[in-house]
Formats: sequence, structure tokens, C-alpha cells
Amino acid sequence: MSFQGVMRPGHVELRVLDLPVAANYYENVLGLEKVGQDAKGRMYFKAWDETDHHSVVLEEGDEAGMNHMAWKVSSTDALADFEKRLEKRGIKVERISKGEQDGCGERVRFTAPTGHRFELYADKDHVGNGLDVVNPDVWPDGLRGMKPTRLDHCLVYGEDLDGSVSVFSEALGFHLTERVIAGDGKTVIAAFLTCSNKPHDVAFIRSPGAPRFHHASFCLDSWMDLQHAADIIAKKNVALDIGPTRHGITRVSTIYFFDPSGNRNEVFAGGYFYYPDRPTLTWTEDQVGKAIFYYERALNERFMTTTTAGA
Amino acid sequence: MSFQGVMRPGHVELRVLDLPVAANYYENVLGLEKVGQDAKGRMYFKAWDETDHHSVVLEEGDEAGMNHMAWKVSSTDALADFEKRLEKRGIKVERISKGEQDGCGERVRFTAPTGHRFELYADKDHVGNGLDVVNPDVWPDGLRGMKPTRLDHCLVYGEDLDGSVSVFSEALGFHLTERVIAGDGKTVIAAFLTCSNKPHDVAFIRSPGAPRFHHASFCLDSWMDLQHAADIIAKKNVALDIGPTRHGITRVSTIYFFDPSGNRNEVFAGGYFYYPDRPTLTWTEDQVGKAIFYYERALNERFMTTTTAGA
Amino acid sequence: MSFQGVMRPGHVELRVLDLPVAANYYENVLGLEKVGQDAKGRMYFKAWDETDHHSVVLEEGDEAGMNHMAWKVSSTDALADFEKRLEKRGIKVERISKGEQDGCGERVRFTAPTGHRFELYADKDHVGNGLDVVNPDVWPDGLRGMKPTRLDHCLVYGEDLDGSVSVFSEALGFHLTERVIAGDGKTVIAAFLTCSNKPHDVAFIRSPGAPRFHHASFCLDSWMDLQHAADIIAKKNVALDIGPTRHGITRVSTIYFFDPSGNRNEVFAGGYFYYPDRPTLTWTEDQVGKAIFYYERALNERFMTTTTAGA
Amino acid sequence: MSFQGVMRPGHVELRVLDLPVAANYYENVLGLEKVGQDAKGRMYFKAWDETDHHSVVLEEGDEAGMNHMAWKVSSTDALADFEKRLEKRGIKVERISKGEQDGCGERVRFTAPTGHRFELYADKDHVGNGLDVVNPDVWPDGLRGMKPTRLDHCLVYGEDLDGSVSVFSEALGFHLTERVIAGDGKTVIAAFLTCSNKPHDVAFIRSPGAPRFHHASFCLDSWMDLQHAADIIAKKNVALDIGPTRHGITRVSTIYFFDPSGNRNEVFAGGYFYYPDRPTLTWTEDQVGKAIFYYERALNERFMTTTTAGA
Repeated sequence: MSFQGVMRPGHVELRVLDLPVAANYYENVLGLEKVGQDAKGRMYFKAWDETDHHSVVLEEGDEAGMNHMAWKVSSTDALADFEKRLEKRGIKVERISKGEQDGCGERVRFTAPTGHRFELYADKDHVGNGLDVVNPDVWPDGLRGMKPTRLDHCLVYGEDLDGSVSVFSEALGFHLTERVIAGDGKTVIAAFLTCSNKPHDVAFIRSPGAPRFHHASFCLDSWMDLQHAADIIAKKNVALDIGPTRHGITRVSTIYFFDPSGNRNEVFAGGYFYYPDRPTLTWTEDQVGKAIFYYERALNERFMTTTTAGA
Repeated sequence: MSFQGVMRPGHVELRVLDLPVAANYYENVLGLEKVGQDAKGRMYFKAWDETDHHSVVLEEGDEAGMNHMAWKVSSTDALADFEKRLEKRGIKVERISKGEQDGCGERVRFTAPTGHRFELYADKDHVGNGLDVVNPDVWPDGLRGMKPTRLDHCLVYGEDLDGSVSVFSEALGFHLTERVIAGDGKTVIAAFLTCSNKPHDVAFIRSPGAPRFHHASFCLDSWMDLQHAADIIAKKNVALDIGPTRHGITRVSTIYFFDPSGNRNEVFAGGYFYYPDRPTLTWTEDQVGKAIFYYERALNERFMTTTTAGA
Repeated sequence: MSFQGVMRPGHVELRVLDLPVAANYYENVLGLEKVGQDAKGRMYFKAWDETDHHSVVLEEGDEAGMNHMAWKVSSTDALADFEKRLEKRGIKVERISKGEQDGCGERVRFTAPTGHRFELYADKDHVGNGLDVVNPDVWPDGLRGMKPTRLDHCLVYGEDLDGSVSVFSEALGFHLTERVIAGDGKTVIAAFLTCSNKPHDVAFIRSPGAPRFHHASFCLDSWMDLQHAADIIAKKNVALDIGPTRHGITRVSTIYFFDPSGNRNEVFAGGYFYYPDRPTLTWTEDQVGKAIFYYERALNERFMTTTTAGA
Repeated sequence: MSFQGVMRPGHVELRVLDLPVAANYYENVLGLEKVGQDAKGRMYFKAWDETDHHSVVLEEGDEAGMNHMAWKVSSTDALADFEKRLEKRGIKVERISKGEQDGCGERVRFTAPTGHRFELYADKDHVGNGLDVVNPDVWPDGLRGMKPTRLDHCLVYGEDLDGSVSVFSEALGFHLTERVIAGDGKTVIAAFLTCSNKPHDVAFIRSPGAPRFHHASFCLDSWMDLQHAADIIAKKNVALDIGPTRHGITRVSTIYFFDPSGNRNEVFAGGYFYYPDRPTLTWTEDQVGKAIFYYERALNERFMTTTTAGA
């Protein structure tokens, strides 16, 4: 495929209630690498197998939630092109200066129809994954916690799901891999979108009112690593939401839990390898239990209703 | 990313010495799905999670080897575009009629500088993966053998490695993910190329003389499935080459073995998720043992020298 | 250690409401081997790696539950010796004739203080595990369902827990590996007993009233096999109780679910290797959630209260 | 079963050429817990889930090898009883004083017919496994390296295999689980003996001349942990012998490698659960490749001939 366009989730900027507590959690329990702290006090983290400067930014605030989610695009030309495409759709964009976040180049910010802030950028400092580029080993020493390999995706709740899906599909080139349809047979109540061979890079759930943040997800290597993660959740007394279980949607095995501020995290493993000639999979509302929690075949109230701020 | 261009390895057409014996092996030992047989006697197979008509074609012949490897591209426009790009490089292309292979649309054939025949096509009958597109399960009943999910890549030996790498990089849009460099510090003796988020979709090894076929590789879900595959290799008395072991290159865990005609197969699991802004990894010749067999840190003669015909 | 005494759970005889439905479940969903059916209509099953004639007997009845659980002892001398020891404690024993169950030698039946019927026997027909005794493979072809390797243990509910623990400890030579203590600091509310290197071979939960049957447990090879089992539970629409999760007690990973008659089954993997010089582990009532479901750290009502008849 | 008699391999005392180098390897690469060092300079280690003071003792010497392997028995009465049984067979026994090894009670030493020194003891300081005995977690923090759970068994080479097998079977109560028979149909060339539910606790290979030490084996939880161990072997440049592979004998998955002094180590996972009513499995010499290395179905010269001193 052509490697032009949106490459991947580049980072998520989260608000946390107590930065030192959160930083300890993200570094030692989830197991990200701490990259540094900027003049504004924000802390930067990355998963070990990511090569750019950061994929998680923590900012202390009065209310937990997501400030924005940012996407790395393939080039500055692509960045300018996406900016134009968004503007053509009547979406207001804003340029955030290079260096506003440590290590990150200029960002193009826009607010999606669901009310969430997304950003695009083409440049971020390359810091490597801790392995040599000549004769590398297969993993670096010193991994901690759940040892996630990458920030994988975010899932958010918002009212104008159709609008955000349109923006990501039509302006940003994403594909709709799976969707949940309401009992009326037409209203999309959940949409899973990808810009890669992953089964999703972002997902939207239709939900009335203000934009909400449901979870940021991190990739583990295997179902065995999920067991290890679940052990850590118990040992460290992390608030579990649900799992280990499996999603019917995307087929991934999963655990949901909460950071100390109440932001939901997911770690997962597996899932299929998406190609754009695969048909969009559809789930009907009566099977939404199986769609979300394949083993339990029922939703839990907490999973559906507990979220943090989405903007 | 833009889903334009070469999507994936679509199929490999292999020559086998005894078709019924080979068909039994590919269906019941490796564990592909048998799709059918055409008027010329060729047999068609697919891995369970592939949705197109076939990914492996077996033709009986006097000498084992690879007839050609074919790539699915994103559209007929892309197909025509690649045809032009190849011709511009002075590479002779040939159109193979729709239906020459059951279920496959028109193919554009060319011979790469290493002497191997490759093909491009935009259309193949969609047969699905045995799961519903509405409320699907996570795997279908009736899986057999090693239960591979997809044809993943081929590795071939040829003299003009630089030429083939140029064609795939420049005309077809592949990225060089890893390479092995000779003691002279510049001659590339092995090149790994991707058109996706996989660490490779095709690989070339520099080798004097006629084009040779080294292996076709199939993807398994996990290291546990590799153990299951190795058990089957022993139980069914399949000729093992090496493994379970791990590649330094691509980080995947792997087993190599031979089909009843002597064509080498690989099953593997794992490996990193490639993005085009990752640096090309380089292996030096003195570390080629670790590059190829990370655990043994030494090559075996059979792996280096036993191949079947590459054209 | 001396291999004298009670060796292992030999079989469990369960009552089911609809024998053909149950037989299909135990054979094709759980994945036991069907051994045969006797003149009384009872059906016999074994797990694949067991070498004796049967480990599960199904009898059709009006109420689901456990008829009895039987233990294989090391010799007919040991059988006679245990009979005497039980009688010395004032426990009435009864000899059940050889052949009352197909393939099983004479059994010594007694009712434990909790009201459950247990049996001892020294002989059962050896049918093998489907592998040769000369140059065997590592597993046989034709495994189905969850592929359990053995009946592992049963857990039962009863009032006189102390009495049953005494009988198993003092008369039958079991060791108390773990226990849960009530808030009063002395009342044992759950007791886990072993006659082997396993963390338990039988367990008792203190519960007022008639004897109840909580679950029969089957051993899987690994956490990966638990994922496969959970997939089957979802695909075949089996009633899930809870899991995949982990027990703090015994450390095993586990899934609970129900046979079509409502008898609870468990499949599990892992757990520590017990030696009699390990200290008995104690769980306090305030930590009983973590003791039972290590990940959730909370009990579910269904797990605590849904049982079938224990006699 | 009765928990009387020989319980398990208690420890192995190894000679190493450079103690600091060896200690670093056993602590940080293999991943044992360092317990201490005695006045004679010997260093003591244990695997994390063992509860006694030590299971590996390292002594610096001019030649690598095994000083002795020791067995923990169930009581001082059992110790005295075994002493008598050995003497009755004409085997000279020697009492080693309590405290000769740190933390270990009085030992009964004898030389087996193959020339290897074995010892029995009933008491060793209980130090725990790093987890609480009240409301324990499932594993302790701070595990390193390959994270073995226990010393599992040793395999030794010696001339009078029949003699040593007789002593272990008849005097010490072991069971013969598997054996390899020579082409003459009667000479036992390899014998695997257990005193527990494990497929073996010690093994003897017939080999002319002086007693030799082949390997000490450590148990891992899973095939996934074997991959992790193999990764460490490669990353830390440990000398690999063979693996990951599988044994036909015992069914375990395995890797062999060498400590810095040339003593062979094994880590393994899996294997069946032995009961004394299982038939002894027999391997014929023509299938010895499959017996030892199930995947390769061939022995390697190094595995057969490289050993260190056995006394």
C-alpha cells in the first residue's frame, strides 16, 4: 500500500488529578517509558517499541479526561493536504506551534463533530526503541509492568457519531472495519475505523451530550502477557473494569482498568489483520453483548456509562 | 495510510511432484482450506482467515518450485498504473487473462531482475473466511492442521538482488525494512521489503545463478500455535529444516520444514508492527547467524543451500 | 514419596436431566472421550490423558447433581485398610460390587459428614490414553472441544465441613493446602485438600443444610487452552459462570460454566506444585474475593449460591 | 498418596570454575534467588517458589561438575529408615553433620553404583517463597532472568545404570516412568525415575567409565516462558546446546544451555502428570532421536558427549 496519509495514533494527551501518582502508575504499573517533563509540568511517556519521542502526555488538571488525540501523518505535504481537506468540509483548523509539546513538530488541530479535539502532525523527534539499528536484539532490557509495545487506539463517546465517522473516512482516509447497528437497522451506534492493517485505530460510540473519553488502549504481544497484566492489576490493586475477556469486535483479547484518576485504560492482544478489501463487519444491537464481551455475552453497566471528559 | 497500491501477497503458485500427496499435505498437515481444482488439474487452497478465492495454487510438474508469486493491488487503476511504471523501467509485462486461474481476474506478469515471475492483479472472487459478516464468531469450526491464518510472504534467491529491490521499492512502492550487508560494508546480501505494516511481504537473498525459491511462509496466531505446529511436524513425520526458533530479522518466531516435494514452508508468529518512519535495520555479515537464527546464532548449511526452482 | 494410599480422583458420577444432550456436551463441547454406555443406560467418559476406563459417569435423573465421587487407591490392601480406618471412626461403609459400574472393581462407599457420598476403589480397567506405550507421540489425533487432560477435583458444599476435613485428613491421608477463615478467626469456611502434588484434589465449603455439589474440574495444559475453551463457550452458547480469571487460592487460571443440566464445570490451568512441607495457606474472610477471584477481587452471587444436588 | 519417603530433589551442589562469574549467571541469567555464602565460600541459591533455604550450591573448583545431589525425605524417621535400607543392600552410607551446608540438617550420603554421590536429609531451614502465608499473591515482585520455579531433576551418566536404578527403585521407592532399550531388546540405556507426580525426578544414562554429570533442570511455568528464556540465552550470549524443542520422553518442552563453567542446565515446561498405575513407557534405540528431541528426531553429538564431572 502507499504509505501516504495518516500513519497511526501518535499520542494522546490525558488530564490526571495527581501527576506524581499518575506518573508512577503509567511508568511502573502500565509500564511505559518515562521520556521527560516539560516547562509546563506535563510528563511525556512512550511504549517501549515506539520510536518517536512520546505517545502519552499527562497534564495535571481538576477533571480527568482526554485533552486531545494526535495522529502522525506521512509528511508535511500530507499535513497541509489534510488541513485543506478539513477546511473544505467547513471544519475549523488551528496550527499549534512546533515545540508546544516537547519533541513534537507543528500540529494541525481540529474539533471533530463529536466534540473531541484531534490533531495531525508530521514530525516528532526520533528517539528509538532502545534497540540498536545495527544487529538489534528482540527486546531491550529493563522492561517493566505490563510491557505494552505501543499506544494502539482510543475510543470516545459523542453525539454526532456520523459526523466524526465522515470526517475520518472522507477527509482522513480511514476505513470502517466494524460497526454496531441499532434495532432500527440503520442507526450506527458504534463505529470502528482504521488507517492501517489494524482492526481499528479509533472508535466512536454514539452518546448524547458532551464529548466523553472512554479509553486509551495499549498493545501487548500475547494472551500470556494479558495474564501477566491481570496479575499486576490484582497485585497492585488497580481498579479493574472487566477482563481478561475477548471482544467479538476486532477479535482481540482484552482487559479494561482505570488509571488512578479514573481514565480507563485497555491492554489487549491479538485481533485480525485488516485489508481494505475485507467487508465491513456489522453487529446488531441484540448481539451487542457478544460484540463487546464475547465471553460474557452481556455488557456491564460500568463499561457503558463510566467515562471521563472528552475535551 | 492510503490504501492505494500493492495490498498484499495474493497467492503463490507452486509446482509439486505428486499432486494428491501434496494436496493432502497442504490441506491436512499445513491445514489450508481446499477451494477446488481447475480444468488444468491445478488445485486451489486458502488459509482460513483469507477472504479471497485462493492464496496457494499447486500444479503438478517434474521439478518442485515456484511458478510465480502474485500481489493483489487496490484497484484496476492501480494495476494499470503499476504496469506503466514497470514498462517505464524497461521491464516487459504481460497480461494474463481473467480466469486463467479459477476465481482470479486479469493479471499483469513480469519477470523481476532476479529472474522470478511476479504478477499483479486487482480482482479475485471474494469467498469469505467462513465467518458471518453479521455478528461473526472469532474463528470458524473445522480448522485443521497448523491452522495458518494467511499466506504471509515468500523468500527467493537470485543474482540481481539490487535490481529486484529497486523494482519493488521504486516501481511498486515497497519499503526496505531490514537488510544484511556483506563484509565489504556495502553489498546487500539479503533484503526484506514490505508493502504493509508487516515486517516483510517479500525477501530476496543474493545468490549466483538461476532464480531459486527458498520458502513460502504462513502466519500463525501465537508462539503456542508454533508448538502445536512442531508437534504436528513430528507426529506426521514432516521433514523439519529448523525450529522452533526465532529470527533476529523481523523478530518473528519460526519453524521451517518441507512439503512432500521439497518446497520449503515456514510457519511463524509474532514480529513487530512496521511503520514507514522506522529506520531500516541493518545486519552485518559477522552477525548473520543471529540475524537469521537468533537462538542458535549460527546458520545451518541446509537452510542456506537447499532450495527449489525459482521460475 | 511412597505411592501408597489414595492416588487421585478416579471418577465423578453426575446426574443429568437429558442424557443425549448431556452426552453431546461432555463429548463435543467439554471434549471428553466417550467410552461406552452400560445396561442401566449410564454413559462413561474419560479425559484423553487418563488411562483408566472412565472418570465421568452420567446418569439421567430428575434432578441434576453428583451421585458420588470416587477415589482410586494404590492397592486392594490399601482399600481394605481405608475401610477399616473409616469404620474405626464410626463411619458406615458399604461394598459396591465389581462391575456395578462398567470397568470398575469393587468400591467402598461411605457418606462423609457433609453428607456427600464418596467411594474408594483399587481397580479399574486400563484402557490407555490413545498413545502407544512404545515410542509414544505427545498427544493423540482426534482431540475435540476443550481437550481436558484429566478430571482434576470436585468442590462441594456442606454443613459439617470440619467433619469431612477430619475424615479426609486423618482417615484418608490428605493434606490441607489452603483454607479460608471466617471473621471470628477460627471457623474454617473453605478447605482445600490434596492427596498428591496438586494444590487440591477435593474442596469443601461450609454451607448449611443438605449437601450440595458446586463443580467438577478438568485440567487443561495452559492459559492458551483456557482462551480456546472460552472461545468454545461463546461459540457453542454454553452458560458461562465466570472467567477466564485466576484463583488466589491454588493460583490456577480458571473458567466456570454449566453443563446443559446446570451442573457447574471448571476448566483450569497452572497452579503450584504442592509438597507436604509447605505451610497451609490461610485466607481471611475480608480477602475472600481475592482468594476466589484474584482479578475481580469480589465474589459473584451466582458462584456462591448456584449449586446442584450433592447426594 | 502417602507423603512418606523421598519427597523431592532438595539441592544439587555444583562445582564452578569462577565463582563470581557463576554466581552472576545463576542469579541474573538463570534467575535464581541468592540466599547467601558460607564460611567455606560456597554460595547458596533457590528458585523463587521453593520454600527451603537452598536448592543450588556453588563451590569453586578446578573442574566443573556435580559434587552431589540431595533429596529431601519426609521425616527423620524416614531418613533413618532409608539409611538402613541402603546399608542392607551393602551400600556404604555416611552421615554429614547438620550445618555442613548452611541451613541444612544432617545428611545421609551414599555413592550410587554409577559412582555419583547422592544424599538424603529431612530438615532444611524454611525461608518461604517470598509470598505471605496469609492472603498471598500469585508471584512475588522482583523476579529476574528465566524465573524458574524449582530445581526439578538431574540427569547423570554412569556405567552401572542397572545398579543405580535398583537402588532408587528398591531402596528409595522411586518408580521407573520411561526407559530407552538398546537394539538387543533388553539393555536399558536410559532410565527415568520419579518419586512424585512428575515424569521424572532423576535420570540415568548408561555410559562407560567415570560418573559424569549431564544436566540440572529447572522448571518454568509455560512454553511462553521458554521463549523468554531462549531470548535471554541469545541476548546474554549464553552457550546454547539445543532448543526450544520437545522431548518425546516426558513430553516436556525444553532448552539446554551451559553455565559459564560448562555445566549443562535445562529449563523446561509441561510434561504429563504421573501416577504409579501408568505403565512404564519404552523407547527403542532406533527411535532414540524422537525420544530425546521429538521435533528434530535426531540426536546431536554435543548433547550426547559433552558432560562435566559426576563426582
